[in-house]
Amino acid sequence: MNAITQDAARLLDTAARAAREAAAVVARAPAPVKDLALREAAAALRRNAAAILAANAADLDNAPDLTAAFRDRLTLTPSRIEAIAAGIEDVVALPDPVGRILAEWTRPNGLVIRRVAQPLGVIGMIFESRPNVTADAAVLCLKSGNAVILRGGSESTRSAAAIHACLIEGLRAAGLPEAAIQIAPTADRAFVGAMLRASGLIDLIVPRGGKGLVTRVMEEARVPVLAHAEGLCHTYVHAAADPDMARSLLVNAKMRRTGVCGSTETLLIDAAVASVLLPLLVDDLRALGCEFRADDRARAIVGDLPAATEQDFATEWLDAILSVKVVDGVAEALAHIRRYGSEHTEAIVTQDDAAAREFLDGLDSAVGMWNASTQFCDGFEFGFGAEIGIATGRMHARGPVGLEQLCTYRYHVIGTGQTRP
Amino acid sequence: MNAITQDAARLLDTAARAAREAAAVVARAPAPVKDLALREAAAALRRNAAAILAANAADLDNAPDLTAAFRDRLTLTPSRIEAIAAGIEDVVALPDPVGRILAEWTRPNGLVIRRVAQPLGVIGMIFESRPNVTADAAVLCLKSGNAVILRGGSESTRSAAAIHACLIEGLRAAGLPEAAIQIAPTADRAFVGAMLRASGLIDLIVPRGGKGLVTRVMEEARVPVLAHAEGLCHTYVHAAADPDMARSLLVNAKMRRTGVCGSTETLLIDAAVASVLLPLLVDDLRALGCEFRADDRARAIVGDLPAATEQDFATEWLDAILSVKVVDGVAEALAHIRRYGSEHTEAIVTQDDAAAREFLDGLDSAVGMWNASTQFCDGFEFGFGAEIGIATGRMHARGPVGLEQLCTYRYHVIGTGQTRP
Repeated sequence: MNAITQDAARLLDTAARAAREAAAVVARAPAPVKDLALREAAAALRRNAAAILAANAADLDNAPDLTAAFRDRLTLTPSRIEAIAAGIEDVVALPDPVGRILAEWTRPNGLVIRRVAQPLGVIGMIFESRPNVTADAAVLCLKSGNAVILRGGSESTRSAAAIHACLIEGLRAAGLPEAAIQIAPTADRAFVGAMLRASGLIDLIVPRGGKGLVTRVMEEARVPVLAHAEGLCHTYVHAAADPDMARSLLVNAKMRRTGVCGSTETLLIDAAVASVLLPLLVDDLRALGCEFRADDRARAIVGDLPAATEQDFATEWLDAILSVKVVDGVAEALAHIRRYGSEHTEAIVTQDDAAAREFLDGLDSAVGMWNASTQFCDGFEFGFGAEIGIATGRMHARGPVGLEQLCTYRYHVIGTGQTRP
Repeated sequence: MNAITQDAARLLDTAARAAREAAAVVARAPAPVKDLALREAAAALRRNAAAILAANAADLDNAPDLTAAFRDRLTLTPSRIEAIAAGIEDVVALPDPVGRILAEWTRPNGLVIRRVAQPLGVIGMIFESRPNVTADAAVLCLKSGNAVILRGGSESTRSAAAIHACLIEGLRAAGLPEAAIQIAPTADRAFVGAMLRASGLIDLIVPRGGKGLVTRVMEEARVPVLAHAEGLCHTYVHAAADPDMARSLLVNAKMRRTGVCGSTETLLIDAAVASVLLPLLVDDLRALGCEFRADDRARAIVGDLPAATEQDFATEWLDAILSVKVVDGVAEALAHIRRYGSEHTEAIVTQDDAAAREFLDGLDSAVGMWNASTQFCDGFEFGFGAEIGIATGRMHARGPVGLEQLCTYRYHVIGTGQTRP
């Protein structure tokens, strides 16, 4: 629980009110102006690479006791800075999501009703150690006409500030308000608490980080949240699967990157093919260093698989470990997913159209895949150009959250003097 | 604050879990099955009209000290019951919102990505005395494939139960789970508190009633809420307004029904036309019994208008009272609306396209009208066939909330064995 102090509440109030003022401006900024700000920010990042690396070095010196993985996430290099700048230019190339006419119809009385895409307003971004998120998130928020308040991990304060300075240079060059991209004015945890309760000042919270952070945010937030607490994704190898396809898809879905939310954590395989196919799948994955937690029916086929506990099927491994369960068809696969899944991404491998339809229709998950790797659940892979996160909630934006999902809509009703009877 | 008791938490947990089970079924029920349930419910309402009226009479006897207005809202008549049944048949005639393909595209790697409309899940409906809301809300939730838990005012318990029994008859006739439409098992306020905190069990809360109820719900809810706390709507008569159009629009926007959220509460009028037009507008409205609260510039034109306080401009009158302010153009009108408005509905009256565009683009409100009455902000008038409420928040569904807005989406990704590089 992030308790709120008076200081934090006051700081948040000041920041958020400035952000709302700025949001009203960037919401109406023409695409070329927003793109100019972004191009100038990218140029500033390249120009100031040395200063950013120095700030990052100071952050690293200041946190000597980090794990290697944490240190790697926190570390910036010239190539990583170039990647951030190039990523900004990719976003510049994307179409402006604001002002799109999402729907338009005419009523019998002649009223023309137009649904127009509009920015959400002020986004609160809460993330952990990756300094690059400072730029990635800010850039998507600006392109979609939103203001953003960024609250990153305290370990990356200096790196984030150095990157933020470049984003501000971009805003200045385009004559846009600097308050459109703000960094939390304090590392005080109480500021996070204030953000989560800022209904009416902050319109959406996007947490990005470990399950602990995201769950805490979801539990405390009074402001709407778009996020996923975990991605406990399933790949279901159906009786009518193409064996070779099943093998290449499972290897990719589990092992391409084991730490991403779209990686497969559990293999469900039909009994009808398990006796032949499961040993091959196990060999493929073992050759890549994958471990297993298997149910009794799977262990009856591959004897040396470690036994899975109930808890194993509810675990998002984010590692080279795969839970394995043998099932008898689509219904049992869906029942397992409904019980243990996180409504993130599930895939079926089959050549049987009816089975695929039954599986996809039976899912409540944000994304259902048919003969594709669960690791395709990603804003870039979806063609969004970029993503600020992935949402597994039930509200109106689900799956990869890109520029379109950072917009809501409003109506324009155009009449000729109609009065309501 | 609705404190939660253990009893209430347990009751809510039981109800919500049953609702989730039912939601999984109705989400996949074919349109003809849902429509059969609705037609049978309408038939049951007509068949059981006498029993419903008796239950309503008992509710009325049980609450002798009601205001006339409250009594009227609570009272059912044969014609009101017929209207409820006819309303259900109107919803039957609407297209099924579930399963619509909202977007579909193909990636360079051949993946076909399809965005498909899907019900939200379990809706929690919290409302006050109108018994008809029991049917209206339940019918929209069922048609959109959602389960619903209805918590109405304690004064209408018997009436709601009698109507609910008819809805259950419909579900039974169609072989749909009765838990898809539930009434709160207790009138205990603690049950409302439990609903508002049921993250993961209830997907959306829709409060309908007075500002007090809605504000309380918004403040307490951990579950997403679609609602409007108030509709402080403005009609702005621009310098280039057609005088006759301005007169008929304002009369309709203010006086057609003064108690609805889309009624105009404040008139903004350009100084350039106020001296001629304001006296005519005042006469029109006075003839219909409207009172005024006017700023000094307006009172300099029509001397006997009562003076407006700061607070008056922040007041949703819901009555035959109009706040009046003279402004100098679109920018000042927008500034006033941003300061005092509720982001519900605002209208501009003008023959000047540029001014209209500036006004509509400058609004953050859910609905902006041009040469039309603010009272058109309504699901029926928008062509949605019906509405469960109107949302003024910034999330992804705004304005009238109809069947489409009671759906979210999921993705179906169809491949041919693609793996992610």
